[in-house]
Amino acid sequence: MTSQPGTSAPARLDLTLDGGALTARLVDQPSVSGDERELTDLVEQALRELPHLTVERFGNNVVARTELGRAERVVLAGHLDTVPIADNLPSRVEGDLLWGCGTSDMKSGVAVQLRLAATLPAPNRDLTFVFYDCEEVEASRNGLGRLAAAHPEWLKADFAVLMEPSGAMVEGGCQGTLRVKVRLTGVRAHAARSWLGDNAIHHAAEVLGRLAAYQPRTVLIDGLEYREGLNAVDIRGGVAGNVIPDECVVTVNFRYAPDRSPEQAEAHVREVFAGFPVEVTDSAPGALPGLDRPAARAFLAATGGQARAKFGWTDVARFSALGVPAVNYGPGDPNLAHKRDEHCSLTAIAECEQRLRDWLTGPVESNE
Amino acid sequence: MTSQPGTSAPARLDLTLDGGALTARLVDQPSVSGDERELTDLVEQALRELPHLTVERFGNNVVARTELGRAERVVLAGHLDTVPIADNLPSRVEGDLLWGCGTSDMKSGVAVQLRLAATLPAPNRDLTFVFYDCEEVEASRNGLGRLAAAHPEWLKADFAVLMEPSGAMVEGGCQGTLRVKVRLTGVRAHAARSWLGDNAIHHAAEVLGRLAAYQPRTVLIDGLEYREGLNAVDIRGGVAGNVIPDECVVTVNFRYAPDRSPEQAEAHVREVFAGFPVEVTDSAPGALPGLDRPAARAFLAATGGQARAKFGWTDVARFSALGVPAVNYGPGDPNLAHKRDEHCSLTAIAECEQRLRDWLTGPVESNE
Repeated sequence: MTSQPGTSAPARLDLTLDGGALTARLVDQPSVSGDERELTDLVEQALRELPHLTVERFGNNVVARTELGRAERVVLAGHLDTVPIADNLPSRVEGDLLWGCGTSDMKSGVAVQLRLAATLPAPNRDLTFVFYDCEEVEASRNGLGRLAAAHPEWLKADFAVLMEPSGAMVEGGCQGTLRVKVRLTGVRAHAARSWLGDNAIHHAAEVLGRLAAYQPRTVLIDGLEYREGLNAVDIRGGVAGNVIPDECVVTVNFRYAPDRSPEQAEAHVREVFAGFPVEVTDSAPGALPGLDRPAARAFLAATGGQARAKFGWTDVARFSALGVPAVNYGPGDPNLAHKRDEHCSLTAIAECEQRLRDWLTGPVESNE
Repeated sequence: MTSQPGTSAPARLDLTLDGGALTARLVDQPSVSGDERELTDLVEQALRELPHLTVERFGNNVVARTELGRAERVVLAGHLDTVPIADNLPSRVEGDLLWGCGTSDMKSGVAVQLRLAATLPAPNRDLTFVFYDCEEVEASRNGLGRLAAAHPEWLKADFAVLMEPSGAMVEGGCQGTLRVKVRLTGVRAHAARSWLGDNAIHHAAEVLGRLAAYQPRTVLIDGLEYREGLNAVDIRGGVAGNVIPDECVVTVNFRYAPDRSPEQAEAHVREVFAGFPVEVTDSAPGALPGLDRPAARAFLAATGGQARAKFGWTDVARFSALGVPAVNYGPGDPNLAHKRDEHCSLTAIAECEQRLRDWLTGPVESNE
């Protein structure tokens, strides 16, 4: 499933492979964030050979569309990059499981996108396939974000499916994330005369106590259950082994349900830490699931009628910001993302492809 | 007060200068820990010119002794090194104050030693002057410690005065110091699904809470009041901004009165943190003041009869370990040690020298 013997350039992508074999082919073409060019070239090349698609490229991002004049247009989107390889390449198959970096997050989803792009010349809805880079690194490099800024018209649609690992379940919306620093201050002194100082680390006791006692909300939105979380993700304090420290900084991450705006989330965190200085270091809004909208309802029905809340912040929030309702739906297992033992079920890949195929070839309800 | 004009080699030390001028001369000859050779050379050279002293050198340590066959022998000891210079050289005089790196800790004490060495050819007690290096850095480099290991016979005496800054008060004994790491563990997870993890930083709430609530002892020993202290001096935890951390380490420093042995101090700290894993990283015993011994009593009477507890760990503990009762007594101000605005009173230098001179020239009580 790696490069073909006897050739030095990467072999072209064969989109007639089944979803599992195509996933393995993609996994064995490494594409750690920032290093996606070769894989992007292969994807672009394969798509340009399909006469029913128009293909655009922007950096290491590729957008391919049908132009059939259908009443609805839907996006199928996925990122091409992976986290760093962790001794888990090349891929290998054991029974129903395909192992390797990116199998779950999210080359199995990309394989399904490519399979549908190759085999649905006349879908019931116009399709926009989006492949982008740098999802696994800082937000400013995110290919979808840069596409949305440079070519928002390429992303226009009635509905979007982001094929991030979701265990082949529809995951609606996403939680917001807010990061703050709580800075405790004191007075430095020699540890032998500690009463002349004021220990900033000891002041963190109260901050950590509030975190330990915090009872996170569970919220139902469009029938989906969102679980919030408020956690210290970092703590630093200390000057030297014989000095009473005058500063201690606790970094806190609040993951919040999408019924809160970023401003409301910040106000809540400031309330939790009332009496302490709170500095916001980064903030990204959540996305409401939007499962009450017609396009989303139809998709949900076609994929089994089950949905759950998305917890991690994902690029559905970028579609949401463009006014495109979006869900996560992909064959990977979100609990295996970024792990050394990342793997994906071959059955899940085939099922995910089949359900999307059913949705994109069946009758379209007139009331949509 | 710096190098003499027209010479390139450092000028010889002129021990006929008064104590303040000699201190300034020593301060203007930088000797940050590890870089004491030039100053040591000057000290050795000056002492070798004094016919009533026998002089030994070991590395950058110099020991000079009278050999008068007196009934008692006392040590006057001081370190030659300073902490790093902090834009506070050359020295300058303002009124009664001499400013500069090492003025207080402890070149004023060294100046008094040198003045007494030069001007007391026939003291009432045999004298051992000890000048050593690397006191301000890790214990393994400490010159007095290396002298004690290599040439313990050079340090034999009935009593020792360590001329560390003590505000011209006798400071008896010293506190012990124990450093431990309290390691909290948890389970790593993505911050978006925090309930799958167990936040190690949150577990530190209880540890910091016990520290914040801790009531340190105040203990009277030989009439001196020792104040203990138990303090976090460092805290570290955190993996990444989106990860529930699985480890948090709190480093705690216990400064304890010398009525506890290191073993008792450790047992106490383990009791305070019962339920948490405690790892000892370093330990140094305290030194009892020993002010009930005859040699100490005589010294105390000669220097004004007042004594207080020493809080910082000092090399008196090394003399204590050699069986030599020792006190701190020097003209510097301990609260100014290691500070950018370090300075010393010229009056205090002169007074300290005069009191030691009185003690070393007056009548010796026969019952000592």
